Amino acid sequence: MPKITKKDVRVPLSVPKEAREEYIRNYLKITNNSGRLMLFAGDQKMEHLNDDFYGPEISEDDNTPEHLFKIADGGKIGVFATQIGLISQYGADYKKVPYLVKVNSKTHLIKTDQSDPFSGQLYDIEQIAEFKSNSGLDILGVGYTIYIGSEYEADMLEQAAQLIYEAHQYGLITVLWVYPRGKAVKDERDPHLIAGATGVAACLGADFVKVNYPKAEGKKQEEIFKEAILAAGKTKVVCAGGSGTDPKKFLTDLHNQIHISGAQGNATGRNIHQKELDEAIRMCNAIYAITVEDATVDEAYKIYTGNES
Amino acid sequence: MPKITKKDVRVPLSVPKEAREEYIRNYLKITNNSGRLMLFAGDQKMEHLNDDFYGPEISEDDNTPEHLFKIADGGKIGVFATQIGLISQYGADYKKVPYLVKVNSKTHLIKTDQSDPFSGQLYDIEQIAEFKSNSGLDILGVGYTIYIGSEYEADMLEQAAQLIYEAHQYGLITVLWVYPRGKAVKDERDPHLIAGATGVAACLGADFVKVNYPKAEGKKQEEIFKEAILAAGKTKVVCAGGSGTDPKKFLTDLHNQIHISGAQGNATGRNIHQKELDEAIRMCNAIYAITVEDATVDEAYKIYTGNES
Amino acid sequence: MPKITKKDVRVPLSVPKEAREEYIRNYLKITNNSGRLMLFAGDQKMEHLNDDFYGPEISEDDNTPEHLFKIADGGKIGVFATQIGLISQYGADYKKVPYLVKVNSKTHLIKTDQSDPFSGQLYDIEQIAEFKSNSGLDILGVGYTIYIGSEYEADMLEQAAQLIYEAHQYGLITVLWVYPRGKAVKDERDPHLIAGATGVAACLGADFVKVNYPKAEGKKQEEIFKEAILAAGKTKVVCAGGSGTDPKKFLTDLHNQIHISGAQGNATGRNIHQKELDEAIRMCNAIYAITVEDATVDEAYKIYTGNES
Amino acid sequence: MPKITKKDVRVPLSVPKEAREEYIRNYLKITNNSGRLMLFAGDQKMEHLNDDFYGPEISEDDNTPEHLFKIADGGKIGVFATQIGLISQYGADYKKVPYLVKVNSKTHLIKTDQSDPFSGQLYDIEQIAEFKSNSGLDILGVGYTIYIGSEYEADMLEQAAQLIYEAHQYGLITVLWVYPRGKAVKDERDPHLIAGATGVAACLGADFVKVNYPKAEGKKQEEIFKEAILAAGKTKVVCAGGSGTDPKKFLTDLHNQIHISGAQGNATGRNIHQKELDEAIRMCNAIYAITVEDATVDEAYKIYTGNES
Amino acid sequence: MPKITKKDVRVPLSVPKEAREEYIRNYLKITNNSGRLMLFAGDQKMEHLNDDFYGPEISEDDNTPEHLFKIADGGKIGVFATQIGLISQYGADYKKVPYLVKVNSKTHLIKTDQSDPFSGQLYDIEQIAEFKSNSGLDILGVGYTIYIGSEYEADMLEQAAQLIYEAHQYGLITVLWVYPRGKAVKDERDPHLIAGATGVAACLGADFVKVNYPKAEGKKQEEIFKEAILAAGKTKVVCAGGSGTDPKKFLTDLHNQIHISGAQGNATGRNIHQKELDEAIRMCNAIYAITVEDATVDEAYKIYTGNES
Repeated sequence: MPKITKKDVRVPLSVPKEAREEYIRNYLKITNNSGRLMLFAGDQKMEHLNDDFYGPEISEDDNTPEHLFKIADGGKIGVFATQIGLISQYGADYKKVPYLVKVNSKTHLIKTDQSDPFSGQLYDIEQIAEFKSNSGLDILGVGYTIYIGSEYEADMLEQAAQLIYEAHQYGLITVLWVYPRGKAVKDERDPHLIAGATGVAACLGADFVKVNYPKAEGKKQEEIFKEAILAAGKTKVVCAGGSGTDPKKFLTDLHNQIHISGAQGNATGRNIHQKELDEAIRMCNAIYAITVEDATVDEAYKIYTGNES
Repeated sequence: MPKITKKDVRVPLSVPKEAREEYIRNYLKITNNSGRLMLFAGDQKMEHLNDDFYGPEISEDDNTPEHLFKIADGGKIGVFATQIGLISQYGADYKKVPYLVKVNSKTHLIKTDQSDPFSGQLYDIEQIAEFKSNSGLDILGVGYTIYIGSEYEADMLEQAAQLIYEAHQYGLITVLWVYPRGKAVKDERDPHLIAGATGVAACLGADFVKVNYPKAEGKKQEEIFKEAILAAGKTKVVCAGGSGTDPKKFLTDLHNQIHISGAQGNATGRNIHQKELDEAIRMCNAIYAITVEDATVDEAYKIYTGNES
Repeated sequence: MPKITKKDVRVPLSVPKEAREEYIRNYLKITNNSGRLMLFAGDQKMEHLNDDFYGPEISEDDNTPEHLFKIADGGKIGVFATQIGLISQYGADYKKVPYLVKVNSKTHLIKTDQSDPFSGQLYDIEQIAEFKSNSGLDILGVGYTIYIGSEYEADMLEQAAQLIYEAHQYGLITVLWVYPRGKAVKDERDPHLIAGATGVAACLGADFVKVNYPKAEGKKQEEIFKEAILAAGKTKVVCAGGSGTDPKKFLTDLHNQIHISGAQGNATGRNIHQKELDEAIRMCNAIYAITVEDATVDEAYKIYTGNES
Repeated sequence: MPKITKKDVRVPLSVPKEAREEYIRNYLKITNNSGRLMLFAGDQKMEHLNDDFYGPEISEDDNTPEHLFKIADGGKIGVFATQIGLISQYGADYKKVPYLVKVNSKTHLIKTDQSDPFSGQLYDIEQIAEFKSNSGLDILGVGYTIYIGSEYEADMLEQAAQLIYEAHQYGLITVLWVYPRGKAVKDERDPHLIAGATGVAACLGADFVKVNYPKAEGKKQEEIFKEAILAAGKTKVVCAGGSGTDPKKFLTDLHNQIHISGAQGNATGRNIHQKELDEAIRMCNAIYAITVEDATVDEAYKIYTGNES
Repeated sequence: MPKITKKDVRVPLSVPKEAREEYIRNYLKITNNSGRLMLFAGDQKMEHLNDDFYGPEISEDDNTPEHLFKIADGGKIGVFATQIGLISQYGADYKKVPYLVKVNSKTHLIKTDQSDPFSGQLYDIEQIAEFKSNSGLDILGVGYTIYIGSEYEADMLEQAAQLIYEAHQYGLITVLWVYPRGKAVKDERDPHLIAGATGVAACLGADFVKVNYPKAEGKKQEEIFKEAILAAGKTKVVCAGGSGTDPKKFLTDLHNQIHISGAQGNATGRNIHQKELDEAIRMCNAIYAITVEDATVDEAYKIYTGNES
């Protein structure tokens, strides 16, 4: 039973009349008719090279990129976010997966003490729309990362502004990843700064914004996160537990983010795909249960451990 | 009773014949038929991140961006200036608000001792005109910030020149924010330098220019500000009291700026929106009364304190 | 009685056939049918901010930009050079003034020891032609400043080359200001370097080039200036006396530049507009008399002092 | 007997329907119906200037660029990769050679300790398609080099992404050369980093990626190379033995790369063209035999030594 | 009697069919039907400012740019290379001169220890073709300078690649000047590096490349130059004797370059134009005699000294 329907979807005014129906369709599908986003993130092969896919704590299943597609295909998700090149190569075998094109990416080789981060746009929206049409794939939206506080901030703000504006012309859903980073940034997890990040996404008109979960000495994360949710206004905020988290802890954090802080979903990568296929799918489904199906942490954990029935 | 009518509006020659009527309409509306500008500034969520919206001296109402729209909707203003993303998300609920699109923005994370300021254009005028048409909103003009003395001055001068020229093709009103800033600038409030800033705006053909209120040891601000008003020629000068000013002092300064210095309005943000909604609206109306209705300081202060009747 | 007529105008081959008549008309008008250029320069509000317009030695008349237009309207000139924004705002009141659009400008806040100079193009020629057509003003030409020896020289050479080529497509007259400046330049007034500057203008096909009057220890300026005139070939050279010169000395220098060095006019700003209106117009007419009417220094000085009759 | 036929060719979804036949034709031809790539690399005249073509260990035949064309014409190859200028000058005499246009190139004069590497795109795909059509040559694909970890990485990622996307519009095969290089890169041959490089190529949707053969103290190269092959997913990996290798060792390495590591071909330059013509052609054919014809090392070595029959 | 005719002209494949006749015509004319190039270089007014045109060892005739045109008109040359601005101003008086447009230029004010050299493109090929058509002048080709080893090498390689490709679309002949220069270059005259330079020109598909004459301790220049001629392949190599050379030595060097090294012409500037007109024309004719007419050094020297008959 859907929690939201067509009439509940607020369409931004940057979406022209002729694209409203497409936007509503994409919005309902990407949120699985729940208004909340379960985004499976698989863009790390450029962002982190092979570090997230090969190593002692990582399943051998994850050594090759098809693993990502198998999870996206077998698990419950709202959308699978990755680069256009992978979609182009695997999409024909995974036609029912809902896709979000991550439009900019960089490697992590250059650290901030050498140079502030810049992640440049690889494709324009016209090409993505053309690719969607040529491929017949169900591309629901686009994503872009901004590093605020970087010396290249202006370039990324401009590309993101254009990306969102143009994506809305096609009715595509837009997700920003906004991270404070650069020599000018002292504490990337500062709750006030994270609230600044979600506010920037709101000013750019993003539909969703992914930020890191704020941290502050002696404060409950789910409480201090509220500032960012408020600051985002109508832009919905999602976040994730980062690398290598214990599954129970991960699910608890997510539940708190949604039910205490007011977050509207999650964007999760490594906590899913570094597991072998079956476990990865169960983790995926557990996260989905909390995000979309209002499951409790215990219910979700049972899904993960395979004791769902 | 309007103080100016259609025939009083001087249309710059960069406005082509077919856009003259639109320019005149926008000019009369943005000045509330007074020739003076009451600009409610709400672009700080990018410029100052969440610093202006969350904190001990700030009303909780201000924690979420809809507060800005409620003020713009409930208070008396000439125009509400903010980024296109916020307008896109809230505009459908606030259709009668007159809007000005702030076209460039940056965060304040990088300080001048690290790098000179650059604020880049996020949208082009064709997109703003398209957005105006698609949204049906009453967008009266566009705004742009230049930091003269920055090592990126040339980029901003070019973008501003183009913005004004192109905006006039559509009959849109143009407002420049011009601030001397950068390693080469010793005193950002120097009256002679502020007069240079308004002169730059005149050379670019801006309709209005917002500058900081000049300061000089042992001089009356309202007197030293006259140099900038004269230097601006036909470009009208507005300014504001900055952050956290006492309301009475703020209104007195504004009255002096208009009636002694020769300013033609104000651009006010934090002094309005950091208050809770009702007080914010009253402050807004008080500022409006001085700017547009030729109220005295006492009359305006009564409006602010709620003893208007 | 004109000294040159239509048949005397040499039209560069970059002017296409369909624009030859327009070029000839503009050339005759800008040189007042004399082949020599009296250019009244009023672009300093961006170049020098308010330094040239407000201060102890400067007439209060000069505090507001309309002063420039009053001089251009009341005095004898070939053309008035300023930015498009000022023309756009005042042009409707000064329709008979012949205009030259100064296409690039910068402020003087950043000194060479911080960064080499760059002055960027603010409008393209298509916009200037459109503005000319829309405004109905008599725009005779365009101007551009190059700083040779700057680390940004390549950008300015390219913009200037394009500007001249495109301006000639519309039959517009082109004036370059060429100044050696930057960390690599030891002596900006070196006569050999000034001759390099005029040669660059010739290679770019400028109709006129404005340079600073060369200086060398123990040499007569009017003699050492000859190298630059020769190096310019068919590009005509003009210069000016700089800031705050004694009028008699100024007129003598100009007479020498024309009759000894072989210069073909002048580009004068501060020596005119820093005076009160009546005196400014007389100074303007004195300069014109030498430049266009072959007056002697004494005749011209009488015009300046008001004893013309 | 072809090992693969039309139906075995997986066409990426970025290839539009109208270009699928062309892509399949090019793919079969460039892999000689084997699915494996024998790429003869002749782009070093820009990359290494004359260092690879003139010197004590280099045949005099290699002193002039026609040598490359003679080898490509006389030897067995899948494709000959070089710059468009050489193809333009020699192509009329070598019409049956299959060509791949190397689209970016740089010289090796600037070392990494002076500046991180950038190799810029010299032609766009439209020009290459036009050249293919005008010349009538059989141009099967395009190549591009990315230096990940360079401060200019973002520019190269964008150009490569665009190149692959646009090349696929014309059905052209795409080959990336991906090398970790720059001040941020400590070990260019690190197997984990090489696997990152092939993963980047996969994310960009390249058909083939050429990397350097990884090395790690005390590890078998053919074993550690497997990580990169897996990480590449459907993008096929090729590599080469570098400069000045002993032929037997070279052929053994190649055999291991293909049959142990899982590589799908090779990209070889200096190990072929630094030999005199006849020997170069035999070396070419030996490499081809292993790559395309599944020859053993001994069989291939006999081809090289001329004892094939 | 022509040494080559239409059928001997090898047309690069980047020249489309419809431009082949034009290319052949231009090629025969620029080489005076000899296949060899006598290029009279007159682009130094930007490259060296007035240093090459005014001074104690320089004829007064050379002080003004018309001198260059008089030589080009009166002497025997293949083509006169200079900037479009000079051609535009003098071309109407020198209509029979064959021209080559030097498309990029810089001044020499900034030395390599301050910043690596960059010379930017001033016009695009479409404008040059338009200028050729509008002016009716016989423009045979275009020229461009690349500094390999400069930190701006990538920009110049791209501009040169585009220039050659586009020029060939119009059948224009292309000449590259390629100089190793920058902080990374230890010895600009190293023969191996000069051979790298000619190889780069070949990879870009230039018709001719001008390099400096290589030098190496204890080696004959005409012998070490052979490496560069071989490396250039079908791109023809020309060079010159540099500044202030003794005429007899200059002619001897040129004869050796052609008959021993295998060069196909020369590009000469200062050794011609720094002489008074009559001597300059005789020097021009002497150089032409060796280049085009296979004269001996003695025959040519007689032409120079005026004892030709």
